[in-house]
Amino acid sequence: MTPKKITSSERQQPVNIHDVAERAGVAISSISRVLSGHPDVSDRMRAKVEAAAAELGYEPDFTAQSLRSGATKTIGFIVRDISNPFFGVIAQKCEQELRKAGYSMLVMNSDGDTETEAANIKLLRRRKIDGLIASLVAEDAPKLKAALSELKAPVVLIDREVKGLNASAIIGNHHQGVHDAVADLLRLGHRRIAFVSGSTRVFITRDRLQGFEDAFKEAGVEIPSDLISLGTFDAEFGESETLRLFDLKNPPTALLAGGIGTTSGAMRAWQQLGITPGKDIGFVAIDEWPLFDVFGQQFSSVYRDPAVIGRSSAEIILQSLKGEKPQNVFVETTYMPRESSAGGLA
Amino acid sequence: MTPKKITSSERQQPVNIHDVAERAGVAISSISRVLSGHPDVSDRMRAKVEAAAAELGYEPDFTAQSLRSGATKTIGFIVRDISNPFFGVIAQKCEQELRKAGYSMLVMNSDGDTETEAANIKLLRRRKIDGLIASLVAEDAPKLKAALSELKAPVVLIDREVKGLNASAIIGNHHQGVHDAVADLLRLGHRRIAFVSGSTRVFITRDRLQGFEDAFKEAGVEIPSDLISLGTFDAEFGESETLRLFDLKNPPTALLAGGIGTTSGAMRAWQQLGITPGKDIGFVAIDEWPLFDVFGQQFSSVYRDPAVIGRSSAEIILQSLKGEKPQNVFVETTYMPRESSAGGLA
Repeated sequence: MTPKKITSSERQQPVNIHDVAERAGVAISSISRVLSGHPDVSDRMRAKVEAAAAELGYEPDFTAQSLRSGATKTIGFIVRDISNPFFGVIAQKCEQELRKAGYSMLVMNSDGDTETEAANIKLLRRRKIDGLIASLVAEDAPKLKAALSELKAPVVLIDREVKGLNASAIIGNHHQGVHDAVADLLRLGHRRIAFVSGSTRVFITRDRLQGFEDAFKEAGVEIPSDLISLGTFDAEFGESETLRLFDLKNPPTALLAGGIGTTSGAMRAWQQLGITPGKDIGFVAIDEWPLFDVFGQQFSSVYRDPAVIGRSSAEIILQSLKGEKPQNVFVETTYMPRESSAGGLA
Repeated sequence: MTPKKITSSERQQPVNIHDVAERAGVAISSISRVLSGHPDVSDRMRAKVEAAAAELGYEPDFTAQSLRSGATKTIGFIVRDISNPFFGVIAQKCEQELRKAGYSMLVMNSDGDTETEAANIKLLRRRKIDGLIASLVAEDAPKLKAALSELKAPVVLIDREVKGLNASAIIGNHHQGVHDAVADLLRLGHRRIAFVSGSTRVFITRDRLQGFEDAFKEAGVEIPSDLISLGTFDAEFGESETLRLFDLKNPPTALLAGGIGTTSGAMRAWQQLGITPGKDIGFVAIDEWPLFDVFGQQFSSVYRDPAVIGRSSAEIILQSLKGEKPQNVFVETTYMPRESSAGGLA
């Protein structure tokens, strides 16, 4: 009597390895050896297992394969906030590249909080990700460093440097773009130039600050320390700091906004104050926002390409998975001078 | 002689179930039975396995746990394009809610292609996701429908209806907002109103089109069929169609742009044509873009809240995982009349 063929669609539960073992009349460990291509398997055993698998419509189980191979084909992707349009493009391009190579991407938001970020990394470690791509909230939080060093998987940091960690990094040359922007503002005649951005706990801010300060030093102009405000990258901070700075007795004549969040906040503050950036004051935005080509044409910017960052992140992690050593890839930033730099200098 | 305690950090490879089996001197299947709390395990066996696991610093394996429990604690999230700022907010809020409940989110882009989308769903099925949240490219592609029905996991569709599929849905009341917008444009005196948006292969477009047509019917005005162009949601289509429509002998006096991509394209077309939306022509944008409050203040919109859509998607999938039946949740859309509606009517 030929056993009735039972297909997956006729059953409530999908066919699993136990069903195949039962049908073949062999131990689960034998099934596992056959399916993982173990050499120590007789032809008779292989035929028996393959016949049972075919009869039951059994598909090799991804989870079981992961367990056998130790590879989950999964890359973790941690950013402060995936709704930031800059990170959105990075995530899109990165996922497209990883998908081509057979990898999937687990996305987690750290919500701007180092505790959350450390917890996310620990979870991803337990989930046995094959690699991690991360734009960290801070580089020096002890819990974060501990979580990263316990990960035991290749890591690509986006614009961050964590000391003592054997990780790759995509490093923007932020110094260059900011330096050129501030040099141009100084050349145009600005002296009271404000700089609002995220914390110096991350490389990107330190590199930008260096560019800012170097431009002043080269011009022989005193750095306006009271106009440098480095806290967080979100719009709320950008708004409150812009309101505070433009209420000073000796307010800025120009502002350099570090990131799309900061720009949003500054724009909202100026609306309240009745200030038109580019007309009443000088303005340079770091990073361009969606529809910038339509609504930002008059605004000077420090430009970098998020698509390049996304694709490079994927490429580096894939190379690491092939055994290549950690590497640093540098991404250009370019000052794009437009009308707004000369604002307030009429 | 007590065996030397070997901790995970001293080893190249993390401790796995094979190491524990070797140390305990028992079969892997016995380890599996102990760790999964199988009742058919002797006290002696349990003690032996637990001692070996503790000595080696073995942590229960997420993958192995998944294999035993059948739950991967993973939700798939498929969108056309995660770099679309609207989807970015949905993804952020959704991930935050899922994370609170112990779930992680695999993000995939379908790149506006039904073949890619079907392949993504198949991959996620093989990865044994516990649930899927998706904004599909089309509802009627046979491969897509087949992939969805084979998934055997709860599905939440964002603004899509797939016939014969037992899925939940977050449904925007697009009809309402578009109807009110078009009614206002007609009341103001517009007759040649163009509508550019994505394909009628998805519910969101059909619902918007119904609102568009109903407003004309109620006003007793003939529908300008030559001004309705429904193709794709991307900026390229929005740009080329806007260029084409405004080159007609009898061009539109107003445009309703269906989505952020279409709006971007229309704005770029008008720049080339020297047309100022809201001044030379009437304009209503469906969905507001990042920095809309700064750069779009004069523009009428049909508004919906992506944060609500993201949170609701997560809530519905979590309820489904607790055994609740598929459900439909409705999200309001609201016409926000501003200056631009009356453009071109001076």
